Amino acid sequence: MSEAARQYSRAHAARFQSELVEMLRIPSLSGDPAHSNDVRRMAEWLAAHLRGLGLGNAAVMPTAGHPVVYGEYLGAGPGKPTVLVYGHYDVVPALMEDGWDTPPFEPVVKDGKIYARGATDDKGQLFIHIKALESYLKTAGSAPVNVKLLLEGEEEVASPNLRQFVEAHLDMLAADVCVISDSSMRVVEEPAITHSLRGMTYLEIEVEGPRVDLHSGFFGGAVHNPALALVEILARLYNPDGTIAVPGFYDDVVPLTAEERVMIAKTDLSEEQFREATGVPAVWGDSNYTIRERVSARPTLDINGLWSGWSGPGPKTIIPAKAGAKISSRLVGNQDPHKIFDLLKQYVESIAPPTVKVKLTLLTTGQPALIPFDLPEMQAAARAYEKGWGHSPVFTRGGGSIPVVADIVELLKVPVVMMGFGLDGDGLHSPNEHYTVAMFQRGIETAIVYLEEVARLR
Amino acid sequence: MSEAARQYSRAHAARFQSELVEMLRIPSLSGDPAHSNDVRRMAEWLAAHLRGLGLGNAAVMPTAGHPVVYGEYLGAGPGKPTVLVYGHYDVVPALMEDGWDTPPFEPVVKDGKIYARGATDDKGQLFIHIKALESYLKTAGSAPVNVKLLLEGEEEVASPNLRQFVEAHLDMLAADVCVISDSSMRVVEEPAITHSLRGMTYLEIEVEGPRVDLHSGFFGGAVHNPALALVEILARLYNPDGTIAVPGFYDDVVPLTAEERVMIAKTDLSEEQFREATGVPAVWGDSNYTIRERVSARPTLDINGLWSGWSGPGPKTIIPAKAGAKISSRLVGNQDPHKIFDLLKQYVESIAPPTVKVKLTLLTTGQPALIPFDLPEMQAAARAYEKGWGHSPVFTRGGGSIPVVADIVELLKVPVVMMGFGLDGDGLHSPNEHYTVAMFQRGIETAIVYLEEVARLR
Repeated sequence: MSEAARQYSRAHAARFQSELVEMLRIPSLSGDPAHSNDVRRMAEWLAAHLRGLGLGNAAVMPTAGHPVVYGEYLGAGPGKPTVLVYGHYDVVPALMEDGWDTPPFEPVVKDGKIYARGATDDKGQLFIHIKALESYLKTAGSAPVNVKLLLEGEEEVASPNLRQFVEAHLDMLAADVCVISDSSMRVVEEPAITHSLRGMTYLEIEVEGPRVDLHSGFFGGAVHNPALALVEILARLYNPDGTIAVPGFYDDVVPLTAEERVMIAKTDLSEEQFREATGVPAVWGDSNYTIRERVSARPTLDINGLWSGWSGPGPKTIIPAKAGAKISSRLVGNQDPHKIFDLLKQYVESIAPPTVKVKLTLLTTGQPALIPFDLPEMQAAARAYEKGWGHSPVFTRGGGSIPVVADIVELLKVPVVMMGFGLDGDGLHSPNEHYTVAMFQRGIETAIVYLEEVARLR
Repeated sequence: MSEAARQYSRAHAARFQSELVEMLRIPSLSGDPAHSNDVRRMAEWLAAHLRGLGLGNAAVMPTAGHPVVYGEYLGAGPGKPTVLVYGHYDVVPALMEDGWDTPPFEPVVKDGKIYARGATDDKGQLFIHIKALESYLKTAGSAPVNVKLLLEGEEEVASPNLRQFVEAHLDMLAADVCVISDSSMRVVEEPAITHSLRGMTYLEIEVEGPRVDLHSGFFGGAVHNPALALVEILARLYNPDGTIAVPGFYDDVVPLTAEERVMIAKTDLSEEQFREATGVPAVWGDSNYTIRERVSARPTLDINGLWSGWSGPGPKTIIPAKAGAKISSRLVGNQDPHKIFDLLKQYVESIAPPTVKVKLTLLTTGQPALIPFDLPEMQAAARAYEKGWGHSPVFTRGGGSIPVVADIVELLKVPVVMMGFGLDGDGLHSPNEHYTVAMFQRGIETAIVYLEEVARLR
């Protein structure tokens, strides 16, 4: 059944590409109110496209923000598994002056790549699943599994309404597995399935000293400078060995297994590669873990911002009244963002001196997601890559945070399989974002095979 | 001779006051190019006034910025000492919306106080010396010492051209002692002679890590966050006991004598007074010294500003490319600002980790000034307060920095006697600045006596 579908996808490659180009022409910037009509237009286009494939009830569904596009194919029947496809049709801003060679919403195909904002993130990747489904429906007249499509318009603005949408539509969205293609691989020969994402605890710390900025000549020497008090506190976040000093911070971390470490080692970076990629003079961190482990499988604590007193040109001789910092922790399974905030708060309060006032404010949280890669749904994806892509995948942990993944795991109680079809060098969120046409095609064939592999699980 | 002059000053008190009011009407804001004509007008007014008193060669002399007013009375002859009076005729800005009850350049006399910008800082205080000289000249036809007046128009913008002016006119300005009235006392009953000012080393430190701001999810854990590296460095500026940790920092500090500590103790503040004055929850610093010693007689090291990454509202999950701080040290005799910069640089470089690049830049320096209070010229000032003011003065150290004082000591090789005639509560640089008429009168009589006391030294 999948062979015919794969042949169909090859035969219609040119049309698939031109349909993707049509999508990429719509500047569906979710963060810019001036483009809310374009976001809506993109949603309507997708719903119409799904109806055109036979998903008669495909619709644009409201949320408190930009709408969700939902469509379903239930023709495989209740005896077959249901795959929920999540993707997002919104994009981040793009301006010529950022360094684009061609207008970001006038797609150009050059050297086998489609250049446009959203090409890889995520229009190209979400469209893969739509075209895979079409390839079954237009050949066999049916697909081997049921397929539900949940296409979001607010991923790039942190999905403020998606959790509520999922909670309100648990039955509609019920599935056996969720597949998301919104990630990437290092090279074509090494496709990657992301089975873990880091969570997040983001907070602000403010230190208050004197009532107002003071003259450092008249008061210096007897006032605990709030900027000094702040740096003294923050300097104690880490131990000298690069581990986090907050008591209890690591308590709930699921240890890496020997098997996983072997797997992660396959994608490790050398110190030189890391220095080149970032520009840092030397690699840093917990030397008990490899670079790849540190940036994906281990929790972090970063200062994202600092401010106090005078930062303009030249001197200003004040003792600042206040000093502050933004601090965030990337969490791994099974750390709880709220518990981590509590631990940070207790620790900072325990080391805060009596000479200043210290206040911590929680800004945002996100649950980490850690999905075992030995689940049948994960192994089915691995086989799909082998057969459809032509290379065995690696299972990787993503260092970033996609809160919706944890929400889906929690609310729908299904594993999420993140089958990346992009390349690390695709330039997502950057000028000249692009997507390789051959990867788009290969992705469709892999997605076709995946549906068949999932069908075989039951 | 001084008795007649004192009687004259009392007899002409009303005119003296109205002349001061006339000065205060001129908005001589040195920092505002829109007022440069007013600054010039103030200078012309003063030169004309001095000529009117018989100082025929009094003139407005150019600098690269606002002019200096210079006048001299040399009638006492070469056998008598020469007193150089320094003062400044420029003022800082003042706007009704800052909280003034009456327009700052329309002086109002109310409850024995003249309200106007510059009333105490420094027009009222510099005019004291002019009126003291007049009181001699109009009664005895001569003064007991030679008097030179050096009146600056750029003190409020850090005297960028005064050092050069002094260097270019060493012969003209040659004197035996310099007297400056640009400071204040706590209460009328406790006049204060400032015999020390702190110097300054002001620098900027910048820590560089990655080439650009990085995504904290993709790189967090293996990049030494520059903001973290910065706070780790800055946290090591102080020892836990509140002393500065930079090796050699205290080496050149002239120890406080037991006698001086007794004297400083007279003006010490209680912890409660200090908390009330500043709003800090607790006093801080080197507990081997009293609060007054810490803020005036001991060197400091303050963070005046901090910046890195994101300081706007909400979260931004970056590893900042850079982090920086403004740092300044208030120095005491005999610390050298350039040596202190070198020590700070060596120390920071010695503790800087190899994972980031650290750069220190010197912004400004100022020499500390420490003038022994047992010098005859100082003791003459003490006697002048006793006889002219009616109270014995205390010798105090000023915590701030007036670079011109160190310049005069260094270039003219004379002691500087800072005879304050203001009150701490006069509101200099603040709304409703004022000067008490009775203190103005008392100051003139004290200045009259001082000239006579200096005459007796030779």
